[in-house]
Amino acid sequence: MNPDAILDAFAAGKLTHEEAKQQLRGSGFLDAGCAKLDINRESRCGGPEVVYCEGKTPEQVSNIFEKLVSHCGRALGTRASEDHFEALPDSLGATYDVVSRLIQVSPEQKAGNGKIVVLSAGTSDLPVAEEAAGTAEFLGSYVERHYDCGVAGIHRLFAVMDQLQDASAIIAVAGMEGALPSVVGGVAGPPIIAVPTSVGYGANFQGLSALLTMMNSCAPGIGVVNIDNGFGAGFLAHKINKQTLGCK
Amino acid sequence: MNPDAILDAFAAGKLTHEEAKQQLRGSGFLDAGCAKLDINRESRCGGPEVVYCEGKTPEQVSNIFEKLVSHCGRALGTRASEDHFEALPDSLGATYDVVSRLIQVSPEQKAGNGKIVVLSAGTSDLPVAEEAAGTAEFLGSYVERHYDCGVAGIHRLFAVMDQLQDASAIIAVAGMEGALPSVVGGVAGPPIIAVPTSVGYGANFQGLSALLTMMNSCAPGIGVVNIDNGFGAGFLAHKINKQTLGCK
Amino acid sequence: MNPDAILDAFAAGKLTHEEAKQQLRGSGFLDAGCAKLDINRESRCGGPEVVYCEGKTPEQVSNIFEKLVSHCGRALGTRASEDHFEALPDSLGATYDVVSRLIQVSPEQKAGNGKIVVLSAGTSDLPVAEEAAGTAEFLGSYVERHYDCGVAGIHRLFAVMDQLQDASAIIAVAGMEGALPSVVGGVAGPPIIAVPTSVGYGANFQGLSALLTMMNSCAPGIGVVNIDNGFGAGFLAHKINKQTLGCK
Amino acid sequence: MNPDAILDAFAAGKLTHEEAKQQLRGSGFLDAGCAKLDINRESRCGGPEVVYCEGKTPEQVSNIFEKLVSHCGRALGTRASEDHFEALPDSLGATYDVVSRLIQVSPEQKAGNGKIVVLSAGTSDLPVAEEAAGTAEFLGSYVERHYDCGVAGIHRLFAVMDQLQDASAIIAVAGMEGALPSVVGGVAGPPIIAVPTSVGYGANFQGLSALLTMMNSCAPGIGVVNIDNGFGAGFLAHKINKQTLGCK
Amino acid sequence: MNPDAILDAFAAGKLTHEEAKQQLRGSGFLDAGCAKLDINRESRCGGPEVVYCEGKTPEQVSNIFEKLVSHCGRALGTRASEDHFEALPDSLGATYDVVSRLIQVSPEQKAGNGKIVVLSAGTSDLPVAEEAAGTAEFLGSYVERHYDCGVAGIHRLFAVMDQLQDASAIIAVAGMEGALPSVVGGVAGPPIIAVPTSVGYGANFQGLSALLTMMNSCAPGIGVVNIDNGFGAGFLAHKINKQTLGCK
Amino acid sequence: MNPDAILDAFAAGKLTHEEAKQQLRGSGFLDAGCAKLDINRESRCGGPEVVYCEGKTPEQVSNIFEKLVSHCGRALGTRASEDHFEALPDSLGATYDVVSRLIQVSPEQKAGNGKIVVLSAGTSDLPVAEEAAGTAEFLGSYVERHYDCGVAGIHRLFAVMDQLQDASAIIAVAGMEGALPSVVGGVAGPPIIAVPTSVGYGANFQGLSALLTMMNSCAPGIGVVNIDNGFGAGFLAHKINKQTLGCK
Amino acid sequence: MNPDAILDAFAAGKLTHEEAKQQLRGSGFLDAGCAKLDINRESRCGGPEVVYCEGKTPEQVSNIFEKLVSHCGRALGTRASEDHFEALPDSLGATYDVVSRLIQVSPEQKAGNGKIVVLSAGTSDLPVAEEAAGTAEFLGSYVERHYDCGVAGIHRLFAVMDQLQDASAIIAVAGMEGALPSVVGGVAGPPIIAVPTSVGYGANFQGLSALLTMMNSCAPGIGVVNIDNGFGAGFLAHKINKQTLGCK
Amino acid sequence: MNPDAILDAFAAGKLTHEEAKQQLRGSGFLDAGCAKLDINRESRCGGPEVVYCEGKTPEQVSNIFEKLVSHCGRALGTRASEDHFEALPDSLGATYDVVSRLIQVSPEQKAGNGKIVVLSAGTSDLPVAEEAAGTAEFLGSYVERHYDCGVAGIHRLFAVMDQLQDASAIIAVAGMEGALPSVVGGVAGPPIIAVPTSVGYGANFQGLSALLTMMNSCAPGIGVVNIDNGFGAGFLAHKINKQTLGCK
Repeated sequence: MNPDAILDAFAAGKLTHEEAKQQLRGSGFLDAGCAKLDINRESRCGGPEVVYCEGKTPEQVSNIFEKLVSHCGRALGTRASEDHFEALPDSLGATYDVVSRLIQVSPEQKAGNGKIVVLSAGTSDLPVAEEAAGTAEFLGSYVERHYDCGVAGIHRLFAVMDQLQDASAIIAVAGMEGALPSVVGGVAGPPIIAVPTSVGYGANFQGLSALLTMMNSCAPGIGVVNIDNGFGAGFLAHKINKQTLGCK
Repeated sequence: MNPDAILDAFAAGKLTHEEAKQQLRGSGFLDAGCAKLDINRESRCGGPEVVYCEGKTPEQVSNIFEKLVSHCGRALGTRASEDHFEALPDSLGATYDVVSRLIQVSPEQKAGNGKIVVLSAGTSDLPVAEEAAGTAEFLGSYVERHYDCGVAGIHRLFAVMDQLQDASAIIAVAGMEGALPSVVGGVAGPPIIAVPTSVGYGANFQGLSALLTMMNSCAPGIGVVNIDNGFGAGFLAHKINKQTLGCK
Repeated sequence: MNPDAILDAFAAGKLTHEEAKQQLRGSGFLDAGCAKLDINRESRCGGPEVVYCEGKTPEQVSNIFEKLVSHCGRALGTRASEDHFEALPDSLGATYDVVSRLIQVSPEQKAGNGKIVVLSAGTSDLPVAEEAAGTAEFLGSYVERHYDCGVAGIHRLFAVMDQLQDASAIIAVAGMEGALPSVVGGVAGPPIIAVPTSVGYGANFQGLSALLTMMNSCAPGIGVVNIDNGFGAGFLAHKINKQTLGCK
Repeated sequence: MNPDAILDAFAAGKLTHEEAKQQLRGSGFLDAGCAKLDINRESRCGGPEVVYCEGKTPEQVSNIFEKLVSHCGRALGTRASEDHFEALPDSLGATYDVVSRLIQVSPEQKAGNGKIVVLSAGTSDLPVAEEAAGTAEFLGSYVERHYDCGVAGIHRLFAVMDQLQDASAIIAVAGMEGALPSVVGGVAGPPIIAVPTSVGYGANFQGLSALLTMMNSCAPGIGVVNIDNGFGAGFLAHKINKQTLGCK
Repeated sequence: MNPDAILDAFAAGKLTHEEAKQQLRGSGFLDAGCAKLDINRESRCGGPEVVYCEGKTPEQVSNIFEKLVSHCGRALGTRASEDHFEALPDSLGATYDVVSRLIQVSPEQKAGNGKIVVLSAGTSDLPVAEEAAGTAEFLGSYVERHYDCGVAGIHRLFAVMDQLQDASAIIAVAGMEGALPSVVGGVAGPPIIAVPTSVGYGANFQGLSALLTMMNSCAPGIGVVNIDNGFGAGFLAHKINKQTLGCK
Repeated sequence: MNPDAILDAFAAGKLTHEEAKQQLRGSGFLDAGCAKLDINRESRCGGPEVVYCEGKTPEQVSNIFEKLVSHCGRALGTRASEDHFEALPDSLGATYDVVSRLIQVSPEQKAGNGKIVVLSAGTSDLPVAEEAAGTAEFLGSYVERHYDCGVAGIHRLFAVMDQLQDASAIIAVAGMEGALPSVVGGVAGPPIIAVPTSVGYGANFQGLSALLTMMNSCAPGIGVVNIDNGFGAGFLAHKINKQTLGCK
Repeated sequence: MNPDAILDAFAAGKLTHEEAKQQLRGSGFLDAGCAKLDINRESRCGGPEVVYCEGKTPEQVSNIFEKLVSHCGRALGTRASEDHFEALPDSLGATYDVVSRLIQVSPEQKAGNGKIVVLSAGTSDLPVAEEAAGTAEFLGSYVERHYDCGVAGIHRLFAVMDQLQDASAIIAVAGMEGALPSVVGGVAGPPIIAVPTSVGYGANFQGLSALLTMMNSCAPGIGVVNIDNGFGAGFLAHKINKQTLGCK
Repeated sequence: MNPDAILDAFAAGKLTHEEAKQQLRGSGFLDAGCAKLDINRESRCGGPEVVYCEGKTPEQVSNIFEKLVSHCGRALGTRASEDHFEALPDSLGATYDVVSRLIQVSPEQKAGNGKIVVLSAGTSDLPVAEEAAGTAEFLGSYVERHYDCGVAGIHRLFAVMDQLQDASAIIAVAGMEGALPSVVGGVAGPPIIAVPTSVGYGANFQGLSALLTMMNSCAPGIGVVNIDNGFGAGFLAHKINKQTLGCK
């Protein structure tokens, strides 16, 4: 409830002083012991709370998934291992993808809307690209993938040029020198989300080289997310795509 | 012209072999001596070529502005000094804003469309915030500004909460620790573009601290642009906003 | 003994020339072979010498614990493994906590005094938060824990606001972008000790991002300790709390 | 007003729905055009909003000072130049200190309470040390200064040892290798606030060397603030000191 | 003289024991007071000693130029100011170029041989590109320039593609994200020398971003020189070109 | 086909509109499922596409090798493990070298041409040096190796001086302080390719120390490749060497 | 042989032209296949070539040890594992120390001369301290050890003060903040060699913090060696000590 | 006085309790207002307190020089400007050197003892080299200078080889890649003090490149001081030299 609604309810006697105060404090979360689940995040932020599984025990993940599914009807887990997946009760009907490491509980699978294009520079960038694609699909976007389009053979990118211009957003995933988003930014109109990956060696410094390249792109209109953060890119692309869904 | 059109024109005898080859080479640029002006960028990339004035002489800027205005009808210059502005011929009808350091030639000033919100954490972040706002306005977006909303007094942000939810995109500008986008990402639905500024001292390291904060945000759905790069943020926000214009 | 006392004892003949010189040299330590135990540290520095167990063999830790307990009546070990714990003789009555990795020998367990609040941004920050809490409790402070209050859902922090204002000190533990202490610093009066954690990935750079955020906080009144250094935070919070114990 | 008070006033009809909503939005700030002054910060955070003058025009500073003094009775400006000071109306009765670069409007100068010790390693660290000292004094603490006590001649520190033990907090300011807080932490009981300065050259890297030293101190109980941030250290020390004022 | 020749001369009595020893010590340099001029460097290393003027007084530069010209017949100075140039005696017949900041004394101007292509990404990279071009020309290579070919409008690069394939070496100069050499490496056969420039702002970190990009290029066959080091690139390109001169 | 040829073929009716468009799009690649193989790279860039095996499954590598060999007659794999090698079908006739970790399919082994010298500073730099040497040999160059010539015993370098001057290119491989290329650059004429290795410890920072040394060399004419990137060095050296093959 | 001797021998016919040339080339090394052993290093550089075992196979180490012992009568190996040690033939009479990881073949064990003091800040710094001590002893110096003297309890250092002043050199080994050498430099006269260790966590950055501290020491007369480089410190200390041996 | 002497004097009644305590506190310093001068440092640390002038006003420097000269008979100031020098009273008989920026008051100029060799790689390293040389001379050492001996023309170093071997210590000053000390360490026996300078550009990063090179030197027996810290090198070299003075 927003302040307007709370004040109205309080004035109408539907909420006591203490209840109103609690509501105003914004206690819209669910206590799962080790975590406070933010169950109103979707209406507030454009997407549900997502479970970052790495570093959590299978039991904790299972516990959180059950709470989230019973309240929100669905749930997404990132950086999940097979152990996390196997700890979930069968009744949840969860699925697991070994490349993107995503666990999804998404009962009413509807076709995605709008279009998001996910580009990767090389084959080794696939796990990150797939995390981005899977996240956007879970949230309800339609995703088109074009992989291995890096600048060392730039004609491979030009072969998919026609597919870029009518996307709501383009996610460009690249490691090593990370030049792909700059080139895409110079040839395509949609907003571009650049994802540096830690693929490479030596002076790549675990993705720092690609991150700096993307921050410094001479082509404007590029937003960068964290190294290897396919999830963040998929989430942002969906937020952008969602705004256009009503009109296409 | 795209390859389809060029081939058709060539088959129809409207282009000679050499002309077709030139077109296919993509020579859609204008030679201004020291620079090759990319006059088709707007149709290709969603925005015109913009003149980065810093490091150019007033004569070079004037030369480039005249060429751009005569071909594209308008022009935008960033990081401009008063000297750059004064070197322009009066006939261009250019305007200059001393805070954002933007020069604009924009004859048919239409009311902006959609809505982009620009937030700044502090008063010192104004030049960057204004560069972002001015850029988006030049490109045709409607912009709403809310400044000095940093997290050290977070109630100042909450006072403008209602204005955030119906924006096409939110630009959050912050220096020092750069925490503003994370907090906004936790309370608002639209896509967020985070701009780190070099405001701060000591271990801020010229904006690196704010940049890292924004890259690592625990709230997903945030794209980051370069330090102090208000122009890039305004450009990206406009790209996002433009897609929704037809349907609101 | 301080110089005054030593000189008096020497003048009174209670100390020989050589004994006085030794005392003046400050040899108030205990030789444990591989280590010189600083048995007077509590009176001098407000807390006893604490054993950093990582990198020490179980035998060394056992040896040091026996010496410390026999001289000081109690002992605390940090970064301890189960192997370290199991090497201790049962007679010490030591306890071990697997999350905080603390070994405690603390025979006369008195209720803590004053109040220190420990906040964590996420569930993954728990080991560091618990190291801080356990350290402060061992030293004699009363500790209140509020976990998973990060800025991506800031209403979870506001729900515990009332508990913050009457603390002697607040320990705010956060990884990723580390924005929690800035927000707390903007809403709460007590001194704040910020602890960056290495939780996160990519451009987090093992906690560097959170550390820089906390150093650059726009909210003043925040002291930062080393990455993952829960022990240091608990120690400093206790030092602050101890000064107020006489008057509450 | 806190939520309790607002709800009571609303229930009692003293606030309209809109007024209550505004209050709950937390609009406890003052609009000074380019800035939103946080006039309730003292009650909320233990200290008033302080004006960081660097990067503001003399007119802006003057404007803000007048607003703050008329609402809060006093004001403090940091990193101020003489130009800032001279732009203030005489009626404010402001004073300026050229070493610490502080402007103070502090009409009823009361003797400070408690005791904070400010130590500096060298003579070049004076501006930072004085900023710390002046800030704490402005806020109401009693401050004792001991300068040029660096570890290259550690007997100079030992000569002031007696003065350290009864302080509420010790501020240790050091550049170059920044070892002073570690040594103080090994001989003195009060909480220590370490301030790295950018004094030094070459591999000092503008204070980074001292900052890292202080973060890694082997003596626990040390909180670190930003490089050259004397203001932050003074503010934190006062917060700690304030808690003990009632009982000494 | 090489060891062979020295030993023969010594055996033949043409060199005394002391002279032979001196020769073997390799004292083939000229003492100019503050500097030891390496007059045999051309035969040994493929290019003469070149004077780095920055940080030298005009008198020192003049002194060194006179010595070099009298021994080697010509001389090149880099990073020279107009002051350096004006201090030279007219008799040397030196010329100065204000963009590349090169001083040349090169009496018998012959047409260059072979072909080196110098590409720049933007207009602001010109000073570095011209330093490279001028250096290679001084050493005797023929140079072709193509400027403002950056990846934000990649068709501008494709327009000059035919000119790339028959070069002995390509110098690709770029600041900001520095992606130009990667793209060139993916379309052109000759060896590529990449020169990062410090052009850009924010997270460019004075050229570090471009340097890392170039080091991590996914296109092999690229050698990188120091940031802004046009001279080094021109020198290396000439070394490569020189080897092919006999056969084209 | 280049644009000229495509247009001619289209005009002559040998290509349909769609075929011409496809050709112009530059679809000269081979789809291997997870990768787009760039089969024309040799004619375009002076060397074939090379398989970076690390991070690929043995099945993927085997699949790619078969495709490449059937189209190009030969193939090179870098950073290969024995598992990669063993997954290849015997019919390919591949060989594997455990030091350089190269897999080669190179049926018609001809003697190499020209001469490339590979120098290493220490014995630990061998894997990188051998990767460079093996790559250049695969591409068709003759390679001469001189190892353990580091600057701590510089007479070991001078003993091979005669062999340096007639090389087409010198590859200098060094870890630790990486000073070898500077010294070689001061005594030898051919172009030098410097390869920093990650050999060393402490402040070597995984090769960063050697990389910076080589970037800053006071001897001009040195191009640097990425840390441990023997492949890139061998490729660049071959590109340089190839240009001289016709004339020696 | 130095040039004088070679020329004399050549003039006297004791060396042929070719032999003299070889000698002048300085071929004073021993070819061990994978390494060129520098057998004259002791007379030239004040200490023999030492075998860095890490990264070498046991067979390589055994091979090198046999060659060195047969030519030089003794040998030292650093960073050795037990596997390296066990591969040596018993006939060498080698010894191995598990803390310092040194292998020594040193048949005629003479008492050390002069005095070198090795100080360590903590117990965890022992492996580095012992590597330093063992190296200096192998080379012939007398070594005195004082461990666990860190600045968190500085009286432990003062207790050994008398032992410092008559040393030829002091080696101060410290991790974490690395302040020990600064304090020693302020109280003791002999030259000090500072060794940063990688002991610590978080913002210690694998020893970088301690390294910077030592480089920036406000006490002059301190030379720093690489992180964890006990060997280098022991070698340098012995070089200093050796010069005083004749006169004490 | 050391503790022995103080206790004896106290026992003998020559010191009161308070005086003894003061002495034991080690108050052997002189209060100069803004600084505590450490007048016993020479006997304790092997060299007098030296005045770092940069950042001090001419008046402060003058004040400190007068105090030091009246107590110690002589004084040395580093990083001094002409303004500092001119503020000194003529009666002090001070001298100033504009290259090294040293002020010396050294009335009884005796010939230096022992021998220290100062090498510089280039002409631009002179100010640092001269600071080192001047400092060592002031302290009483004999200094021999050999400048412009960098590795780009290594025969210039070999020409002075005979002068290196009989030095007590060698100071090797180098910027850019900083390889000089490694090469010297491979050919000369005396202890080597390496001084990185900030000379260079681009990826030199203000001397960091040279510093890392020197830390990682593969030649052992090298101690490194801070970037541009000629003073520290001269001081350490003198400390080493002093120990050998009695026996030569």
